[in-house]
Amino acid sequence: MEFTPRHSDYEARVRASFAGQQAMPYLGMTVERVAPGEVEVALVNRPELTQQLGALHGAFVTALADGAAGYAALTLMPADAEVVTVELKINFLRPALGERFVARGRVLKPGRTLSICQGDVYGVQDGRETHVATLVATMMRVANEAH
Amino acid sequence: MEFTPRHSDYEARVRASFAGQQAMPYLGMTVERVAPGEVEVALVNRPELTQQLGALHGAFVTALADGAAGYAALTLMPADAEVVTVELKINFLRPALGERFVARGRVLKPGRTLSICQGDVYGVQDGRETHVATLVATMMRVANEAH
Amino acid sequence: MEFTPRHSDYEARVRASFAGQQAMPYLGMTVERVAPGEVEVALVNRPELTQQLGALHGAFVTALADGAAGYAALTLMPADAEVVTVELKINFLRPALGERFVARGRVLKPGRTLSICQGDVYGVQDGRETHVATLVATMMRVANEAH
Amino acid sequence: MEFTPRHSDYEARVRASFAGQQAMPYLGMTVERVAPGEVEVALVNRPELTQQLGALHGAFVTALADGAAGYAALTLMPADAEVVTVELKINFLRPALGERFVARGRVLKPGRTLSICQGDVYGVQDGRETHVATLVATMMRVANEAH
Repeated sequence: MEFTPRHSDYEARVRASFAGQQAMPYLGMTVERVAPGEVEVALVNRPELTQQLGALHGAFVTALADGAAGYAALTLMPADAEVVTVELKINFLRPALGERFVARGRVLKPGRTLSICQGDVYGVQDGRETHVATLVATMMRVANEAH
Repeated sequence: MEFTPRHSDYEARVRASFAGQQAMPYLGMTVERVAPGEVEVALVNRPELTQQLGALHGAFVTALADGAAGYAALTLMPADAEVVTVELKINFLRPALGERFVARGRVLKPGRTLSICQGDVYGVQDGRETHVATLVATMMRVANEAH
Repeated sequence: MEFTPRHSDYEARVRASFAGQQAMPYLGMTVERVAPGEVEVALVNRPELTQQLGALHGAFVTALADGAAGYAALTLMPADAEVVTVELKINFLRPALGERFVARGRVLKPGRTLSICQGDVYGVQDGRETHVATLVATMMRVANEAH
Repeated sequence: MEFTPRHSDYEARVRASFAGQQAMPYLGMTVERVAPGEVEVALVNRPELTQQLGALHGAFVTALADGAAGYAALTLMPADAEVVTVELKINFLRPALGERFVARGRVLKPGRTLSICQGDVYGVQDGRETHVATLVATMMRVANEAH
């Protein structure tokens, strides 16, 4: 599916919104790629992000998938919009093992108010990717200054 | 619904598993209450946990709800079991505002392999609670030493 | 939670909308109870509604839960609104056995555009209820005449 | 992703299970295609399947997606297994309009006990397909004779 962004600054817009929230940089997440309707977010694994069985904690797998999906929605929004997650569902396919994780988000259905997005998370080890989780979420456009 | 734990040490078991994962203590989460089929987890708000609109980031709302729900399942498991999340879905009801957050998890349906659990997150401000999210998740029992 | 409907005819409104869709009466579903923010829908079991293991097929369990939840949302809407389901998630707790099924829907969070609702389905046998499924869904208000 | 079925009769197995449940034939659903890890289910639209706004009722959109996803899981199971849906989540992308509907199910992650599957539903009008819904579900293997 080909998407046409509503303004040419969609990448700068995504990067500014990302930098404007403290949570994702705090966790060490980085925006890797921005295209119309698609965003990639990455995270280098570290011990304090793991759960009791040594894998990346599901909360961070979810944060990656949700971030990639939400910013994918933002690429197709007007310049003054923000996006919040209305709901998300994630299925954990395999233990989230890897030295690094990458989440690829894409818009399944853009909308004026609601956008439906998918986010897939891959564990990366020695350059090899394993699909560890898949998320589908509903994103809602909100005004930039208020919730 | 009344649940009977399979061993008397269920509370110690939950606290040990919680301490054994680095992610939840790293985020500042604490186990507040443990009862058969029910667990309460809390988190004091701080700036690095917020999203671009000033509310608690959805990743941490999800971590709270999932943690409370998963540990609720663990209270009903044999002493040598661990629990992993198979899937979770969370609906964000309101912006997650508050000086503190509490998640209450409970088992809807215990099972030998799979347990279905609910987790509700409340923002607390000046002693008043606001319901900010509701999660339903499938938890799977796994052996303690392996995934 | 106490809800105040926006007009006094909310029950007639629900029953008219229900009668206006062919699917639910075709399946044999009936509206049992309507209150502000709450609706109960029922279905008498019959062989053609079963799956390969003899239980009520998940599609009809879902239809019951979704119907009860959606009409619960409609009770709090203006008289000229309709409601469509944006997304739904259902966890099947037990095999859906019973001579009759009842779904209880309630609004968790009413909203101008989106309402979050829960729907629980119970199998009824010899007057005894068993909880067989739980659904959480996002309902969206749409204009009555168009989608 | 390439899947290897565990026995050569996987297609006959799917068609026998489908015929063995009364619900899907009752609704008019038909199995269109069976391949390892993939199944296609179809339904011709008719008035009694519509909701109050003229589109295919969400219950039947869900039944199609769930059926295709569940039978996709069954293609990879041993000959004596059955599959039940543990949970499903569906996002409705657009009104389900069309003279005919087709659901394509595929396995995202096969497992001994649990399989994660996706199901996408398309409305077909004048030979043109529109994507109307996407489902992700957890399927559980159960013994053939009991639940």
